[in-house]
Amino acid sequence: MPSHSRPSAPHKASDETMMITDNVQLSRRAESAGGNPIGYLMHQALSRPELISLAAGFVCQETLPVEAMRKANQLVLASDQQARQALQYGTTAGFAPLRQKLLERTVDADRQSLAVSPHTLDSVIVTAGSNQLLHLVSETLCDPGDIVLCGAPTYFVYLGALEGLSVRSHGVATDDGGIIPEAVELALEQLDAAGELPRVKAIYVPSYYDNPASTTLAIHRREQLVEIARRWSRHGRIFIIEDAAYRELRYYGEDVPSILSFDDRGDTVIHAGTFSKSFAPGVRIGWGILPKPLIQPLLNQKGNLDFGSPNYNQCLMNVVLEEGLLDEHIEKIRAGYRDKLQAMLEAAQEHLTPIADVHWLDVEGGLYVWLKLPRHMEAGVDEPLFHAALDQGVLYVPGEFCYPAEGVPVEKNSIRLSFGVQTPDRIRQGVRLLANAVRGLRLEA
Amino acid sequence: MPSHSRPSAPHKASDETMMITDNVQLSRRAESAGGNPIGYLMHQALSRPELISLAAGFVCQETLPVEAMRKANQLVLASDQQARQALQYGTTAGFAPLRQKLLERTVDADRQSLAVSPHTLDSVIVTAGSNQLLHLVSETLCDPGDIVLCGAPTYFVYLGALEGLSVRSHGVATDDGGIIPEAVELALEQLDAAGELPRVKAIYVPSYYDNPASTTLAIHRREQLVEIARRWSRHGRIFIIEDAAYRELRYYGEDVPSILSFDDRGDTVIHAGTFSKSFAPGVRIGWGILPKPLIQPLLNQKGNLDFGSPNYNQCLMNVVLEEGLLDEHIEKIRAGYRDKLQAMLEAAQEHLTPIADVHWLDVEGGLYVWLKLPRHMEAGVDEPLFHAALDQGVLYVPGEFCYPAEGVPVEKNSIRLSFGVQTPDRIRQGVRLLANAVRGLRLEA
Repeated sequence: MPSHSRPSAPHKASDETMMITDNVQLSRRAESAGGNPIGYLMHQALSRPELISLAAGFVCQETLPVEAMRKANQLVLASDQQARQALQYGTTAGFAPLRQKLLERTVDADRQSLAVSPHTLDSVIVTAGSNQLLHLVSETLCDPGDIVLCGAPTYFVYLGALEGLSVRSHGVATDDGGIIPEAVELALEQLDAAGELPRVKAIYVPSYYDNPASTTLAIHRREQLVEIARRWSRHGRIFIIEDAAYRELRYYGEDVPSILSFDDRGDTVIHAGTFSKSFAPGVRIGWGILPKPLIQPLLNQKGNLDFGSPNYNQCLMNVVLEEGLLDEHIEKIRAGYRDKLQAMLEAAQEHLTPIADVHWLDVEGGLYVWLKLPRHMEAGVDEPLFHAALDQGVLYVPGEFCYPAEGVPVEKNSIRLSFGVQTPDRIRQGVRLLANAVRGLRLEA
Repeated sequence: MPSHSRPSAPHKASDETMMITDNVQLSRRAESAGGNPIGYLMHQALSRPELISLAAGFVCQETLPVEAMRKANQLVLASDQQARQALQYGTTAGFAPLRQKLLERTVDADRQSLAVSPHTLDSVIVTAGSNQLLHLVSETLCDPGDIVLCGAPTYFVYLGALEGLSVRSHGVATDDGGIIPEAVELALEQLDAAGELPRVKAIYVPSYYDNPASTTLAIHRREQLVEIARRWSRHGRIFIIEDAAYRELRYYGEDVPSILSFDDRGDTVIHAGTFSKSFAPGVRIGWGILPKPLIQPLLNQKGNLDFGSPNYNQCLMNVVLEEGLLDEHIEKIRAGYRDKLQAMLEAAQEHLTPIADVHWLDVEGGLYVWLKLPRHMEAGVDEPLFHAALDQGVLYVPGEFCYPAEGVPVEKNSIRLSFGVQTPDRIRQGVRLLANAVRGLRLEA
């Protein structure tokens, strides 16, 4: 299989460090773990505060749930006895009342019933954000050299985690309905023909307003993917890792049932959720709903790592759910993000549409707009556009970071814009500055 | 090198799970990660609440810092702006003001000065308890088959983590002054002679009131160990992993400087600390102070895993330090644990001393008393003593769990007793019941 190396950020801190690591021998795992490419971008943003960063995928700071946290803290700390329980160690799987609520909430959102769900309390594990769940699952399923199929483009932090585990990310074509089942099927056929099917352990699918392209997996594709994963599990089970991190950030349209809801036997789909987008990243609570045979192996890994996520934070989130504070908060932030999204799309319409060959997908939720630039205009950090944008005063994430190491080739003329952090005015200004940079290069060419 | 397999708990949950994992292929890492042996014990304790558990290494629930948490939460959430910052993502390394305080606190305790310390803010990483630090360090330094030298006995959770990484734990003799430098030297000589020196990556040393034997590393041994680690770093650097988790739980005697304080070049010692013992495990905040060349590789690992520990919890602990709440709390719990320790030692004196060949070390801090039973009386979960103790109504941790996989042979006639959780009365009763069990078996023999 051809492999294209993922771009890495220039001047990584690790390069400097290497010079003083004489006589220090790191593990193979440590050697293959690259720095987060976005680290370089964040450094740019921090060292030049005048820049309008449309790069960071942070949530809107202004609407973080201060009042809800005050109330939740008060409730958790109200009685001495309950407070002490929250301050003690919990179990590795997590606080049972919270896990039960997470399961019920997911089943409810899917308009199903716990009575017929293959999942129970024991299917749920609380983790440090959904990111830890993705990492634990990947290291539990994959040896170095194993393969995870991913959409192209996909969530670059997960690609970095796979790289750190020496797991091969294999890119599959996507369109505005998310990852294309026929393309998954084709990739599996090709890998099978190459004798590599036994190495395929999972298909990673962000299913709602994904990062970076903001596409939501079409509903009929959800059922199809479960069927495909099962049918190709000849050598060993191929799991679907469903990343539902952005499910609650819906500004238009209707919610659709999760891929999990199509896994009637509960043997195929690993469902990852998080409060980092819908509530507050600073609390770092995510979760997984998993096929039963994966639970104990995952708990073994998590037990070795951290004994379980902070009990206090889990008690807080339990109260947040119990008191309806989460749903209140989600209603509030939806309105704010809808305004920001609208500002970005209007500015794009105004400033980018006039430039030939600049396109973007419709966006109904999430935090991102995925831009396609004119065909030969590359957007990487070493390319003229990136520096022209910096000169204009705007920062973006080059789309090339979001492509798996193998499979579908990298489209270097792509950009991820985030609308989560900046105000509508700054968003409009940022898009206008970016359009200036693109237009300037078009004129030069 | 001879290897003795570590005992595992009977009827592990993973055995059951294996039966339904058909067609599920786990990674080698997942296959080698055993369940926590203490899981079985905790299950016993939970399913028989009438048992007096002297097993769990939990801190005393009654003295968990409810008031301090109320105050810290109020302060963090007082201003909307500061609260929002706490609820946002932080950096992977952690909240800078907290890291600075952790460094200063350590340097102060060591009666040194930051001006001459080789460590700076950049040397400090905040983790999910000290346990995550130990795990990250081990997976950053060690490939499968590599070796970490450990005292025998030592912290069994760390042994489990090494086993999960397929890293060989190699036991070295200890006495009441902790790990014996001459024994470390001898082990290194033997490993060198066997051509295995290049595989030795670290020496793990709990340096204060360790778990399980409650020994504190003698001060002159601290300097010696640094010298030994450096001298044997011919093939690659051998680090000392100093686990200072129990440093603050001192009930008698004087504090001694950390091993870190003898690492004048800052190139040898990895220092791990935690608030789980001194404040509250439910907050799950620990930290490491590390040689600079390890920082970026560790951040890469942690970035892939969880992006950094919960920012909110770090802001809380920052305020707890700032307001002097930690030191207040430590003073309070010291008095309580001192009473519990005294209850355990007096009961041992009364009930166990009359039994020939039962011994224990002096204890000045921590949460444990390490018992040596008559020579042929084995204490494992499948042995008569364990069941006799359960019949009497008392639960303990068999000492055999605390022995590394290689090196110094397991002493199966040892027991770890914890005095953290139970009241002084229940502790006295528990020790009396244990003495009954031991005496019963002696009479039978």
